[in-house]
Amino acid sequence: MPFLEISMWQGFEDHKKEKLISELTDVVMRIVECPKEAVHIIIREESRENWASGGVQHSKKFKKES
Amino acid sequence: MPFLEISMWQGFEDHKKEKLISELTDVVMRIVECPKEAVHIIIREESRENWASGGVQHSKKFKKES
Amino acid sequence: MPFLEISMWQGFEDHKKEKLISELTDVVMRIVECPKEAVHIIIREESRENWASGGVQHSKKFKKES
Amino acid sequence: MPFLEISMWQGFEDHKKEKLISELTDVVMRIVECPKEAVHIIIREESRENWASGGVQHSKKFKKES
Amino acid sequence: MPFLEISMWQGFEDHKKEKLISELTDVVMRIVECPKEAVHIIIREESRENWASGGVQHSKKFKKES
Amino acid sequence: MPFLEISMWQGFEDHKKEKLISELTDVVMRIVECPKEAVHIIIREESRENWASGGVQHSKKFKKES
Repeated sequence: MPFLEISMWQGFEDHKKEKLISELTDVVMRIVECPKEAVHIIIREESRENWASGGVQHSKKFKKES
Repeated sequence: MPFLEISMWQGFEDHKKEKLISELTDVVMRIVECPKEAVHIIIREESRENWASGGVQHSKKFKKES
Repeated sequence: MPFLEISMWQGFEDHKKEKLISELTDVVMRIVECPKEAVHIIIREESRENWASGGVQHSKKFKKES
Repeated sequence: MPFLEISMWQGFEDHKKEKLISELTDVVMRIVECPKEAVHIIIREESRENWASGGVQHSKKFKKES
Repeated sequence: MPFLEISMWQGFEDHKKEKLISELTDVVMRIVECPKEAVHIIIREESRENWASGGVQHSKKFKKES
Repeated sequence: MPFLEISMWQGFEDHKKEKLISELTDVVMRIVECPKEAVHIIIREESRENWASGGVQHSKKFKKES
């Protein structure tokens, strides 16, 4: 049942996504007490032009990575 | 009023999207009893690297199509 | 894999939700060509105060149902 | 706290996104009465093939319009 | 076309929602250059127990603030 | 930056939500390498009537399970 959507900046390497998915799934199944197969995840990547906080795009706010 | 978001793997052919949109709209307007123009749909395509279930990315879990 | 989120006004009867889910699932599995079990749906109900189009809340725009 | 997701057609110029983010943030902080830094925005761009209303894809419904 | 989802804490008064919707719609139609009727908004209210930043629920982090 | 939305069945106890938020935040900040304060989470609770997989509402599919 639990369904996770993770919005992040574009461009994370595949091994980081893999690790993120694996560890988030473990946390959810342990605390929610559901079968591992029941945990679904979608990573939504967005460019820094399309993210903002405090009224400023992250492409202007952050030069390198957060 | 009804608003549908459909998250799917990337790469569906345009004629499948067209058919999906047309048939989903018909189901919704008939059951919800709203005007056809009131039904809005967005298809959100995500790569298989960005989908996971059971803690494993779909790029690793599925070789061909689901 | 396909994941549907349907945002609708609050208050649809359970038998309408049941029918909507059943028919939407059939459309998706037939066109996307995936197993039935792979189709996930969440209905997100929102009050008419929380919906708007053309700058006007649906609680003010629509007196009865759409 | 307030979190805005704006789904739009693909291809808006950066200066329009910048202006949109800046003005939406101002509206939210003024009415919600929260600090500017608390307002988060994500713009989700989707192709016109992936948008539909009235059962028709926007790639077919609209020829030019932004 | 543009579709806005605004996630906020639960409990905003109706006149604030009305104002928010009206002003956000004006900003979007002016910058995106679309008809007013094309702008759709959903406000998604969530309790402070269900919001978190920095690993802490807003029900614990904020005592009063709207 | 990272923004997590977790859709779950309604009715989880507050101490489970607290634990979930705390552990998910730790995973994200460690793997994404961002400041703890940058991790935002919203839990979206939905009734079992409003969840479905395989064309069947979870209110009918699951009698007890969390």
